[in-house]
Amino acid sequence: MPADPVQSVSVHSIHGETARPGTDALAVEEPLAILVSHGPLADRRRTPISITMRTPGHDADLAAGLLFAEGVIQSADRILNIEPSAMENAVRVELHPEVPLDLRHLDRRGFTTSSCGVCGKTTLDAIEAKCDGPRSGGSIRPAIVHSLPERLRESQPAFSRTGGLHAAALFDFSGTLLGVREDVGRHNAVDKLIGAEFRAGRVPLNDRVLLVSGRASFELLQKAAMAGVPVFAAIGAPSSLAVSLANRMGITLLGFVRDGRFNIYTGAERIEKN
Amino acid sequence: MPADPVQSVSVHSIHGETARPGTDALAVEEPLAILVSHGPLADRRRTPISITMRTPGHDADLAAGLLFAEGVIQSADRILNIEPSAMENAVRVELHPEVPLDLRHLDRRGFTTSSCGVCGKTTLDAIEAKCDGPRSGGSIRPAIVHSLPERLRESQPAFSRTGGLHAAALFDFSGTLLGVREDVGRHNAVDKLIGAEFRAGRVPLNDRVLLVSGRASFELLQKAAMAGVPVFAAIGAPSSLAVSLANRMGITLLGFVRDGRFNIYTGAERIEKN
Repeated sequence: MPADPVQSVSVHSIHGETARPGTDALAVEEPLAILVSHGPLADRRRTPISITMRTPGHDADLAAGLLFAEGVIQSADRILNIEPSAMENAVRVELHPEVPLDLRHLDRRGFTTSSCGVCGKTTLDAIEAKCDGPRSGGSIRPAIVHSLPERLRESQPAFSRTGGLHAAALFDFSGTLLGVREDVGRHNAVDKLIGAEFRAGRVPLNDRVLLVSGRASFELLQKAAMAGVPVFAAIGAPSSLAVSLANRMGITLLGFVRDGRFNIYTGAERIEKN
Repeated sequence: MPADPVQSVSVHSIHGETARPGTDALAVEEPLAILVSHGPLADRRRTPISITMRTPGHDADLAAGLLFAEGVIQSADRILNIEPSAMENAVRVELHPEVPLDLRHLDRRGFTTSSCGVCGKTTLDAIEAKCDGPRSGGSIRPAIVHSLPERLRESQPAFSRTGGLHAAALFDFSGTLLGVREDVGRHNAVDKLIGAEFRAGRVPLNDRVLLVSGRASFELLQKAAMAGVPVFAAIGAPSSLAVSLANRMGITLLGFVRDGRFNIYTGAERIEKN
């Protein structure tokens, strides 16, 4: 298993009509099975709950972040242990015996999917019922927001080498980078980032900005809402349902954060005025 | 239900330290449930097999493309009918009574997910067993490849308005655009495009180039392999497993197709030399 998220390959590089041999660095993509041990200690069961294509690295963070985002666990002490399985490309999560695991629910939800199980409106209601939204009262200066993409790029060696990895980064309101994770899958990058914070007992993420290198989809906002993130910033565009969810949950949503400009879609009160 | 894939919202637009009110066009994102009617005509059953977040439009193509990509159906006559369900955000597919639907299999696979169900190597074997790969003997000129992104952009009004939609386009080897589909989800755009061809009885897609506006992941190559696509071109980067699959299946994989250059990762024999 390569620990390196990047793999080098030979290519023919074509410029105009000219072909030259060359090499290119690829983002590594491998499947990861998440196996959960659950139930009373006298009668443990092991259940595979998810298989996701991911870039190897920070697999324990990914598993914890996914279980937290899906509402299976609410605090770090609900995980007794997380370790690589003897099986290749698998990680095993030992849940506290008191954690209920409704497998029918997991199956129906798809779990690792872009699915939400119900229509948009019902989903928004369900998320609102499941989490309180951000409780941060703080605000952030526009100049700090402008600086975030460059701070992310500086800390992202694999991305700049391959152009093929999504990144998610966490900042405080003064722009200090607190963590960054990369993955071929945009959801995985966010799950890894939030999972690391969750395992360290730092959720909810009050007074934090979550920055993603791509677009802001409904699902990414859903993960941010579960973690109590007050400001979600995307270098790319948001979708319509991402804006709806941010609005409902009281999250500040910023899009097109690049080249000295950005749009505020919701929660303008957290962006300082001059 | 908006038929328009774009929705306008009010924003605060920040340039430097200056805030101005403005509007922005968002890519619409809504869930779609795919309901399948199957089994003998005397004893039909209706089963929801997938819920995916998608941009409304071409839902029948999306459903057909997904069922084809997953190996549930191999020819257009296996679908008796596809139509919007009375339920909002749902499409109903009437399968031919002889089409077997192994629901256990569908559940395990996750179906709408980035999952592949097994480790990388086994998956590659399984795909190789399921489809023959491309049978095209033709080749394409580099100048044609260079021109494809611009031809895609010209035909893509919603994308240029929102910056938030992925696109997939089909060309012949002389660069003529044959079809284009857009979606907030990259997989959906490809499923819609291939689904439309599948419904018209034009699969396998011999002597065709499939161009995607983003990156080339394993799953997108898997869909291309099922449809017999000989040349897969991405404006973004490919992943490691995408290159492995293209190599195994004999697909020509091109990446970073932009600004007068591209890389050939596999299948260089289909790119003409000067």
